[in-house]
Formats: sequence, structure tokens, C-alpha cells
Amino acid sequence: MTDLTLSHTATHLKRSVMRHLIALAAQPDIISFAGGLPAAECLPQSQLQTCLDAVLARDGVKALQYGPQYGPLREWIAGYMRQRGVACTTDNIFITNGAQQGLEILARLFVDPGAPAVVEAITFTGITQALGGHGAQLRPVAIDGQTGVDLEALEAALAADPRPRVGAIIPDFHNPLGASLPLAKRAQIAELAARYQVPLIEDDPYSLLRYAGEQQPPIKAHDSAGLVFYLGSFSKIVAPAMRLGWIVAPVAVQPKLLVLRESLDLESSQLLQRTVTEFLDRGYLSAHLARLNATNLERRNALLAALDRELGSVAEWSAPDGGLFVWLTLPQTINTTELFETAIQHKIAFIPGTHFCTPHGHTNTLRLNYSNTTPANIHEGLHRLGQVIHAQLA
Amino acid sequence: MTDLTLSHTATHLKRSVMRHLIALAAQPDIISFAGGLPAAECLPQSQLQTCLDAVLARDGVKALQYGPQYGPLREWIAGYMRQRGVACTTDNIFITNGAQQGLEILARLFVDPGAPAVVEAITFTGITQALGGHGAQLRPVAIDGQTGVDLEALEAALAADPRPRVGAIIPDFHNPLGASLPLAKRAQIAELAARYQVPLIEDDPYSLLRYAGEQQPPIKAHDSAGLVFYLGSFSKIVAPAMRLGWIVAPVAVQPKLLVLRESLDLESSQLLQRTVTEFLDRGYLSAHLARLNATNLERRNALLAALDRELGSVAEWSAPDGGLFVWLTLPQTINTTELFETAIQHKIAFIPGTHFCTPHGHTNTLRLNYSNTTPANIHEGLHRLGQVIHAQLA
Repeated sequence: MTDLTLSHTATHLKRSVMRHLIALAAQPDIISFAGGLPAAECLPQSQLQTCLDAVLARDGVKALQYGPQYGPLREWIAGYMRQRGVACTTDNIFITNGAQQGLEILARLFVDPGAPAVVEAITFTGITQALGGHGAQLRPVAIDGQTGVDLEALEAALAADPRPRVGAIIPDFHNPLGASLPLAKRAQIAELAARYQVPLIEDDPYSLLRYAGEQQPPIKAHDSAGLVFYLGSFSKIVAPAMRLGWIVAPVAVQPKLLVLRESLDLESSQLLQRTVTEFLDRGYLSAHLARLNATNLERRNALLAALDRELGSVAEWSAPDGGLFVWLTLPQTINTTELFETAIQHKIAFIPGTHFCTPHGHTNTLRLNYSNTTPANIHEGLHRLGQVIHAQLA
Repeated sequence: MTDLTLSHTATHLKRSVMRHLIALAAQPDIISFAGGLPAAECLPQSQLQTCLDAVLARDGVKALQYGPQYGPLREWIAGYMRQRGVACTTDNIFITNGAQQGLEILARLFVDPGAPAVVEAITFTGITQALGGHGAQLRPVAIDGQTGVDLEALEAALAADPRPRVGAIIPDFHNPLGASLPLAKRAQIAELAARYQVPLIEDDPYSLLRYAGEQQPPIKAHDSAGLVFYLGSFSKIVAPAMRLGWIVAPVAVQPKLLVLRESLDLESSQLLQRTVTEFLDRGYLSAHLARLNATNLERRNALLAALDRELGSVAEWSAPDGGLFVWLTLPQTINTTELFETAIQHKIAFIPGTHFCTPHGHTNTLRLNYSNTTPANIHEGLHRLGQVIHAQLA
């Protein structure tokens, strides 16, 4: 085959280690803590079937045709955001194919090659991929495992020259750390964005996955300057295969979002937009979330108990009030990338923490997902992982 | 609201005139020839409902979860491409959210800002948007309304320094011209790509929409150098709301495609991938295409008859053997952008041809879509359009 001349971006594209690890972890006999999947048993199959049938019966071929962003879905989202304290109308809501597409569109909206972008020093790889993919120079900001991004570090990063084009923060049940921002910090972050005139992406796919403690308003609720771009997603709270999320953004940039989106993939499925709207309008969400979060809590508790039993003497970990992940810190002598190789031999998978870090580091950390593993498998998996770790420490 | 500093790309983004016109044209009392929608009446609603039900009954929550590209869909596509004369296996097939996402991914794979990209001088706006969106300098190549891209012009554009990074060609029922490449030209185009070592995007959403004449193998069937990147789509042949298409590409670049796609929106819906596969595996496609193409033929014939009656003395037009569009050339004195303003007052819409042109020009042309308008409305619409044109000529 001919050698192809690829773009600078494509040439320097890193192999997706995450996807590789998740693919390895998907082998049938592996107990995987690697992915970020919602509990399969909880996916609302019968409700979605009901909604699909109702939509096709009511809307017919309109649900199969091209069409504009579905108004009733934008209305529902605007109402939900107002309940969360965000001043917005339907005109502020832009439908995306999940929050990842929101990240991509906002990266394209703000980032020029070589321009700085502020990211949490440990964060979801989709954020660094989207911003880095458009050539942003990532400017990492220290983050606390309990209360999220460090305010002094954030202010320094926002104030530094050249001024960053954009920043990105996960407010609740941080991936991978599990941290949630306290109320006061949210207002302060919005204030910092306004003071330094830097748009902030608030990436919030997890806040409804709360099984303990009290829900806080998003940063966007404190955003009087119109500088916070909120991202939501139905992937974790309804189903990943609906491929739907949203951006809350000023009306003035909506035409830009539309043109950027059109070039990416035209539009989201009318069928899926209408089906999720039906799910929401029928009020299925709250019962579904109650069931989902009860399952997540049971699994988180199983994981924390197993961690205490197997690794209580040698490791530290987060104890989140929701979301999908626990962050584990092992003794400095353990390199979790090497540990992965041994663990996979023992049919256990996780994501080494270094993949979430800018720059890479924290080589003794790892992320554990508990939402899609049964308590029995969590106990068995942690037992094996504990043995592997103790063998390395011996 | 705060003034936002946007990226260079976003700042210079053109307002989507096409989308604006199509939105205008969607007003209820307008007879629209503006869009590119398949006949709504023909969308296979009952078959897709059957397939959705079968998939959910068989696959359960797997159809609602995250997952890899669906193997059986890739297999079906590989089999279909082999029938079309393309040497490929499942490993060559990459699933996308429609052909537009394929264009975006390939633009990102090949284009660096400022690098030349070869496009047909009149072509689908999604092609110029995707390549231009990544900063390509568009190098237009003359195109013949009957037989497609001009070979001498294509060779000159491929040979010129700096060598283009990529080219893009529509082989069948060209949007907007209606042209289809003769067999010999297809082999010659593949040969030119190989001689000048320029990858070519073959954008083929329409070739199965043939109601007359004989189907030809794609350019990709003549591609021994592995330089032709074929794009297919289920939007026009199954339903737009399935949001599915595909790239045929060398195995060596598949990991790059996967990382590029992951950053855009992770993946396509498992539910829609499995539903379309069910539709294909049950053999629903051929009966559906027969019905769809019979409808398209009836509407094309209505349009050609109406054109002859209303504009026979003053205009010229294409008479395609398939696809969705007729290209109309009016006397030089008519500016179709101005004509649009008058036509919309008379409740008629179309797309002025200049929007498809690089550089803009051909101000006396327009594109008429006939697939989603009934014969009665086609006759009434052309009657009104004829009156508006004759009034301008008088």
C-alpha cells in the first residue's frame, strides 16, 4: 500500500491507550473496572421501547426524516436547567451527540493552535483530547481529590499571559477523582471566569448520579457574565445509545454552534431526540434515577468494603457521593501501568491514573469504575487485585 | 453579555446560507425544491419499527449501552462493497454518523491549514465546508454537467505544486449537477490518484438511487494503490434519522480513524446500528429501493415535464438517471440569489447555484430537489417559478 501523507494532527495522534485498555477489558472472562459504563441491568429497556413505539405511532415518518433540533427536547432541558438555578430559555439550548460532541464543538469555537487552554491537572481524557486535538497548549491546574479544582491555582492560570482562550472543569463526581465542588467554590469559579474574561466549559455528565449528600447548583447558575458553557448528557442518566447531550450557551453564539455542528455530522437523530423527549415527558426519569443510583450505591459500598479489606493497610481512595468512579492511590513504589500488565493476566482490568494526568505522572494511581460490575464480582476482582498488589509490595 | 474571543475558524465561519434557505423553505405553505430530503411517504416506517422491536427483543440492553462498531453491520457493508467490485473485508469498514462525519474525519486525517485540496468547481457544500473548515486552500476543478469532473483539469490540479493533500469527487448523481462518471473515467481517476499519490475522497450517498441506466462500479473498485477513500450513507437509502454511514479505508489508517472519531462524539448508537443491520439482513433494502426509486422517477418526470412546459424556451436543465436533484441554467441576465427573494414571496423555494460553486459564480443557476415534493406540487411550483422568471425576462 502507498504511504499516505497525513495531516500534522493525524500524524501526531496518540494511539488511544484508554480504548485499547477498555477493549482488552471487554474480553469475556475479565472483571473490568476499566470503562465508564452505566449498570447494564438498569438501562430502561421497557420504558424506551414504550417511548419508541409511542413516537413512531404519533410522529410517523417525521421521526425518521431530517429535521431541526427537536423543540420539545430543548424545552425540557431549559426547564431542567432553570430548576438547577440557571437563567435560560429554549433558545440557549443546543442539542449534541453526547457531551463529547459538546466538547468538540466548544474546542472548535474557542481554540486556535498554540493558544493556551486551562484544564484540571487530572481530568477526563475526552477534555484533553478535544482541546489538544485543536492544538491548544494545555495549562494544567492543581486539583483536590475532595473539593475539586484549586482556586488559587485556577486564578493564576486564568490570569497568566497569554490569557487562556478557554478552561474546562468537571463540577460533580469528577472523572476520575470523584471530587465535587462545594457551593461557595462554584460561585467563586464563575466570578474568576468573569474577572479574567475566560470562557469556562462546565462538563457535567454525572451530577444526577447522586446517591448521598445534597445536589448543588452548577457553576453556570452563578454565571452572570455569560462565560460558562454548560455541557449535559443523557448517556449516563437515560442510555448511552441515545447519543444525546446538550450545551447551554448564549443565544449570540448559537448560529456558530449550528454551523460547526453541521460540518461535523449535520444533526442528531430525530428518532432518538423524540424518544428521549417522550421518556422525559412521561416522567420516567426520576424512578429510573432512583433505581440506578440505588444500584450504584450498593456497588460503591461493595467496592469501598473490598478496598478496606484488601488494601486498607497500603492504599488510599476516594469515597464519592455519586458518579461512577473511585480513585485509588497506591504506595509510590507501584507503577500502575506495569501493574495493569500483571492484573490483566489475573483477569482484572482498570485504567492507570497517569492517562488522566497533564503532564503524565501520578504513576501510583488508578481509576476504578464500579457501576457496571456486580457486588460479587467487585469482591472477587478486588481480592485478585489485592493479591497482585501485595505480591509487588512483598 | 461579555464579548467572547472566538477561534480564528469560528470568527470567520460563514453563516449557513443553505440552512437559512432550507429553514425558510420549511414554512408550511411553501412549495420547496430547496432541501435534499428523501420522499417522506417512502420512509420505511413499518419495517424499521419491526427491526427496532426485533433488536430490543434479541439484544436487550446491549442495544442501549456503549459498544464497539457493530460487527454484523461492518460485515454487511463489506459484502455490499465487494458486490460493487471493491476488494475489501470487514476490517476496511469504518462506521460513521452519516457521510458528513466521514468527510469531517477524512478532512482531519489529511488537511493542514493552508494545504491545497482539490474539489469539483461545483459540488456539495458539505465537502467544501469540511475541507475548508480545516483550513484547506480549495483548488477547484472544472466539471461537466453530464459526465462529471474534467479529467485534464483534474490531472493539472493533482500535478500542481504544492501537491494537494486530498481531493473529493462525487461519482454518481452529482449534487447539485446530477452528473454520473462514465465507466472509463472512473478507472482513469483512480489511476491519476495513484500517479500523483493524492488520496481521493469518493463521496457516494446516491448511487443506489438509480431509476434508469446501469449502475457502474465506484472509483474505489479501480483503486489498487489504496488511495481512494469511499464514503457511503444509509441516510438516503434507509432513513436520515438512522444517522449512519461508512468509510472504506486501508486497515493501516483504521486506528487513526478511531481516535479521530472518539474525540468527535465517541461512537454511533448501538440501537441504530443494530436496527439498520436488521433491516439489511432481512432483505428489506431492495423492495424499499424499488419503491423509493419509482417515486423519485415519477417526480423527476413531473419536474422535467413542468420545466419543458414552463421554461422550455428560456432555460436548460439536467436530466439525471437517479439521485435527488436537477440543475437549472437560466439566461445570464437572471441572478438566482435575487430570484430567490421574489420566488419566496410566491411561496416557492430552491437553492441558488452559486452556493455550490468554488469560487462563487454561475449566478444564473439553481438546484431543484424533486424527491420530497408531490407531482401536483411540482407542477404548481414550476408554474409559479416560471411566472416569476418570465416576469424578470419581460
